[in-house]
Order: sequence, then structure tokens, then C-alpha cells
Amino acid sequence: TSNSLSGKGLLLKADPIAAAFRAEVEKSLANCSRSPKLVGILSTSSSPSRTYAEFTRKQCESLGFEFVLKETGAALLNEGLGEGEGVEEAIMEANEDDSVDGVMVYFPVFSPQQDHYLQQLVTPYKDVEGLHVKFHYNLYHNIRFISPSSLSAPTSSAAGLTGDESENDDPPRGMVKSILPCTPLAIVKCLEYAGVYNKILPYGDRAYGKTVVVVNRSEVVGRPLAALLSNDGARVFSVDIDSIQEYTKRPSDLDSSRKYHPRHIVRPPPEAYDTLEACLAVADVVVCAVPNATYKIPTAWLKDGCVCVNVAAEKNFEKDVRDKASLYIPAVGKVTILMLLRNLCVCLIFILVISTNLTRCRYHRIRLQQYKTVSPP
Amino acid sequence: TSNSLSGKGLLLKADPIAAAFRAEVEKSLANCSRSPKLVGILSTSSSPSRTYAEFTRKQCESLGFEFVLKETGAALLNEGLGEGEGVEEAIMEANEDDSVDGVMVYFPVFSPQQDHYLQQLVTPYKDVEGLHVKFHYNLYHNIRFISPSSLSAPTSSAAGLTGDESENDDPPRGMVKSILPCTPLAIVKCLEYAGVYNKILPYGDRAYGKTVVVVNRSEVVGRPLAALLSNDGARVFSVDIDSIQEYTKRPSDLDSSRKYHPRHIVRPPPEAYDTLEACLAVADVVVCAVPNATYKIPTAWLKDGCVCVNVAAEKNFEKDVRDKASLYIPAVGKVTILMLLRNLCVCLIFILVISTNLTRCRYHRIRLQQYKTVSPP
Repeated sequence: TSNSLSGKGLLLKADPIAAAFRAEVEKSLANCSRSPKLVGILSTSSSPSRTYAEFTRKQCESLGFEFVLKETGAALLNEGLGEGEGVEEAIMEANEDDSVDGVMVYFPVFSPQQDHYLQQLVTPYKDVEGLHVKFHYNLYHNIRFISPSSLSAPTSSAAGLTGDESENDDPPRGMVKSILPCTPLAIVKCLEYAGVYNKILPYGDRAYGKTVVVVNRSEVVGRPLAALLSNDGARVFSVDIDSIQEYTKRPSDLDSSRKYHPRHIVRPPPEAYDTLEACLAVADVVVCAVPNATYKIPTAWLKDGCVCVNVAAEKNFEKDVRDKASLYIPAVGKVTILMLLRNLCVCLIFILVISTNLTRCRYHRIRLQQYKTVSPP
Repeated sequence: TSNSLSGKGLLLKADPIAAAFRAEVEKSLANCSRSPKLVGILSTSSSPSRTYAEFTRKQCESLGFEFVLKETGAALLNEGLGEGEGVEEAIMEANEDDSVDGVMVYFPVFSPQQDHYLQQLVTPYKDVEGLHVKFHYNLYHNIRFISPSSLSAPTSSAAGLTGDESENDDPPRGMVKSILPCTPLAIVKCLEYAGVYNKILPYGDRAYGKTVVVVNRSEVVGRPLAALLSNDGARVFSVDIDSIQEYTKRPSDLDSSRKYHPRHIVRPPPEAYDTLEACLAVADVVVCAVPNATYKIPTAWLKDGCVCVNVAAEKNFEKDVRDKASLYIPAVGKVTILMLLRNLCVCLIFILVISTNLTRCRYHRIRLQQYKTVSPP
């Protein structure tokens, strides 16, 4: 193999991983009664955001999704509008427009705090990015399958099924998968492809035995990823600038019968693992998403044969990473966009359920297969 | 007066301002069918948070509110629990406990992003701090009066009445005031007391003619404050580390008939006001909330006779601030806690409406006076 010839780990680009999901999305789309419509909202002069918007358009159009780019604020050049001006109105309009199935906003727009406010304004029924608190709540509580009507509840609740209550990843009748944020989900899919998940283990526990280091603890990437992986059985060290946390599904010394805890727990790490170097020394998988071009994980700290995934735009691993890593995935963006389009198919189910006013009873007769949309009866 | 004697502006402490609201809250409480119960959730080892929790207890008990401090995580010393551990469970328990009327969390717990997630978990029906996105949405859209049932809607909407549609600040029948975040509201009340609001002007426009500089644009203090003041007619320069924005209710060159804009607009400032110094030179009011002990507004930049309000724990004004300012309010914390207790009385109305399952029709018969709670019929 090229591996033994070069003495280096494999470079695994995202294309073959994306190809598998492309086929899946094409199949879902063929079952849709109409072409789902995605609205992208670009409200800044950021050129990476515009590039990503054009990338979204290309992907949508090549697959047969409808894509409308709504430009506002500083995205409209020469109109003297401010950064982000009009973004809220654009969200509300897309929320209320029955012809729109999914809404995505090109972030960052304002500060992280104000952007979080904007994320909560997108109705969860059209939230293809999975950034609404309701979906984060489900993710953090290991609630995988939901009834679309639960999205109308005033607060998050434990209604829904956890992975441990099901035998595979097909939602039960009348339920759909809760939407997961695209980037963490794409990383999980890359790790599945890379063989990190063991399909012989029961569903919901297929990362058991694996130690993962996730460098980044943002609400968009690092924290949901750590939760997803630990809910699947992995031991995760979540590393950010000022602390390390350990995410694990299995409480070793705690009462496991806690009412609100059908999920991973988060603890300070044992003393032996209170540095990044110590965590990396035992990590089977290293995921790094630090938005800083100068930040690099030292190859010398990696465990021999580990799997490394770079999520940041600029590489967070050194050039010689494959001297230690058995597999190196340099980027996940092409998989991320397909997760977004998968989510768009789920949103179309939400919309159909709402717009046809199916009663609970009639609704249950529909066989909602995984991400397969259905025509209204 | 002492003013002319000393040649200095007045030092206005929060105590007399708080005293007026204390009397109002006592009156509301006398009309309550039972003593409202507030749960404070302390999950960190932060000593300012513990001090604030003890301050909350003292205020509650002196007024006759019930206060329960729920300690979890690192707040439980010597139990080896992490910072913030168990905070989510404590929130969910308080949400579901019918004997609890209001829930407050002592922040910061985690990162600002993760704390924002926590803020959305508190049910809006018990959100005495007014940190839920539904309340922020109302504030930013100048929606002042709401029906309690609107809090159950899946997304924010423009349902409700703006200040411009009413003649005073009494909510119409069947509606209550939307909850406002405590600190910005306390600052507005201090400015009312200080005579910045002109009661001769119509309700909803009483800050017209005033130019205000707000240094800080967080989602907890600066941005909601800028929105409140501009919705009341003021011209506000919102200043943060990397930009200045101008908030104004009156679009000068924009179409004012926009569907989603019954409210202030946010623009980049005119070129002449692109520095803090230039903004301060025309500011009638300066509010500063920078959480940094070394940050000081230079007295030399202040306009003669302006009103200055310090919100930060450490003073953001120089010692000689009153050489320029006509009035200086050094702290607002004592007013903030009373705003929280006012909100708690509103939450009791929410709870009574829900728990007694009043129909819309019966509910409208109740005269809900401002912050006056009622017994279930």
C-alpha cells in the first residue's frame, strides 16, 4: 500500500466521503414532491461568506435544490448600508414565506453574542444549520428522535427518544431525527468513514473504547461535537484556551439515575490529563478547529497511529502530521454542505406536516424513513 | 445648593431611586395571593456571584419574597464537582416545579456562548432576568405589551403592542408588560429619576432630543439599553471595542414603512462621529459598562453638564468626573435587584394565568394593572 511505501499515514480528502452522502441526498430528493427551497442570507461584506454562499449555490443547483441568495446590509455594495443591516427582517420574511423550506445565515454577522440571538430567530422548522437551542438541547441530552410538533413547545423538554432506546438510527414511526448542527455532524460522518466508529458495537455506543481530543469548545463546533462523540460512547477531552474538560457517557463515581441526565457527563479531567500534551498522548482521534492560522498541534505530541481531523480554514496540524497519524483528514467543508442539504430534506418533512395539517393520527400512518420526504396524502 | 458651593456636579447614589421602587414592589406584593418564590442557582465558586446571591436573599427576605438558593457544581465546596456542573438540571427542575415563580442563574458560569444557551433553557414564564430571546426580540422590536400566551409560540413574532400604539405605560386589558432585562431597565429608571426623560413629551418618546453614549454592546447590558433608549426617542451612539453604531428611532433617509421595523434603526455613525471622543463631545448622557478596572472615560472628553452613569463593578469614570458632569450615578445594582423583583411579580401573573387554565375570554375580564398580581378567580 502507499502507506507502507511512504512510511506515512493516509491523506483522506473529503471528496469520497461527500460522494456517499451526495448519492443519499439525491435519492431523498427524488422522493420529494417538490424541489426544496433554501434561502441563504448574506448581510456582510465578508468575502469568505460570499465564497461560501456561492459554494452553497453551486452545490444546491448541481443536486436540484432551489437556492435563493438574499443580500442585505453591507452585502449590497455601494448602497451605504451597514454590516448586518436588515438581517433580522430577512430572517423574519424567510420564516413566514411558505415557499421557503430552509433558512441559513452566513455568519459571523455581529459579535458572537448577537449572532447567537439571530440564530434563535430562525424558526426551528427551517433551521437547516441546526443552531436553534431546541436542537442543541436535544443534542446535549442525547435526544435523537423527535416529533415535529415538539418544536412548537415553549421550552425544551425531555420528550423524544435517546439513542440508547433504539436499535438503529432509523426514527420510529411518526418521528424524525432531531436536526444536528452541520459541522459537528460532518465530523462524526468523517470519523465513521475513517473507521473510528465500530459497527459491530450496538447503535448509540459505536465510539466506545475510543479516546478523542477536541480542540475548540464553541457552541457551533467543539461542544456539540464533544457531546455527540461521548453520547456515542467515546471518552472525549474538550480543550479550549483556559481549560480541559472530560466528556464521558459512563459516570464512574456518580449516581447514574439522575432524572435529567440520560446523557454524557462533563467533569474536570483527572489530574494526569490536565494538559493538552497529556491528553494527546492517549488520543486515538484528534479534532482541531482553532480559527487561528498560527495555532498548530505539535506532531511530536501525537500518539502513533491516531486519526487527525482539521476543521479550521487554516491548517491546525503541522506539515509532518502523517509521520504520526495513520489517517489525516485536512478539511470537512464538502461533507458539511451535504449535511446541510440532508437537513433541508428533514425541514421539508416539517413543513409538509405543518402545511397539510395532518392530525397526529393520520401522521403516524406515514412511514417516515430516514431523511426520506413524503408527499402530502 | 451644594452644587454651586462645591462647583461640582451632584453625586446621585442609587438608594433614593431604589427606595421609590421598593415602595412599588411592596404594594404589588400586598396584592399577591401568595408570596412569590424565587430560585437562585449558584453553580460556580465565584465569590462575586455568591455575594450577589446573598444580596438577593437579603433583599427578598426584607420585602417578603421567598428565596431559595440552589447550590450545585463548584458552589458545593469540597464535593469535587466542576464549575457549572449540574446547572442545567437545576434549571430544568425549577422550570418544572409549580411552587417556583421565578428562576435566576448567577452568571458567568461557562463561556458567554454556553451561558447564552443556558439563558434560553429558563422557561420565559419564570425568566425574571428577562434574558430569553423572546423578551429580547420584543425589546428590539419595541413590543412593550404582550399576552402571556404568546410566550408559548414556537418563534418570536410581532404580536403585541409597541409603545407608539399606547398612551401611557399601562398595559391594555389582557396584556402584561413584556419582561425587560434588569440591568438596562434599571439604567433607564435611573435616567428617568435623573430627569433625562421628559414627562411632558408623549409616552414612548420621552427621551427625544437627548444624545446618549453607551460604552458596551453586550447582549446583557449595552445593546438592549441602546435599543430601549432609542425606542424612547433618544439618539444613541453604541460604542464597543471595534466599532461605533448609531441607534435612532427616526430614519432620516430610509423608507419608514418597512414591515418588520416598527422600531429603532442601527446604522454606522456619520463620519464626524466615528470616534468615542467626538461622540462624547455631544453626549447629554454617558453610560459606561466596561468590565475592566483600568478602563476610564477621560473627563476632558465629556460635555459640560452631562449625566454620567457607571454600571461596571470597577469605576469607568475618573475621580474628577463631576468637574464636568452635572450628575454622576456611580452604581445601579440596588435598582437592578428591584427590577428583578418587579419582574418576579409579573412572572407570578404568568404562572397564575397558566395554572388556573383561564380561557382567553375569562382572562380578559381581569384587570391586570401594571405589575399588580391578582388572585385566581
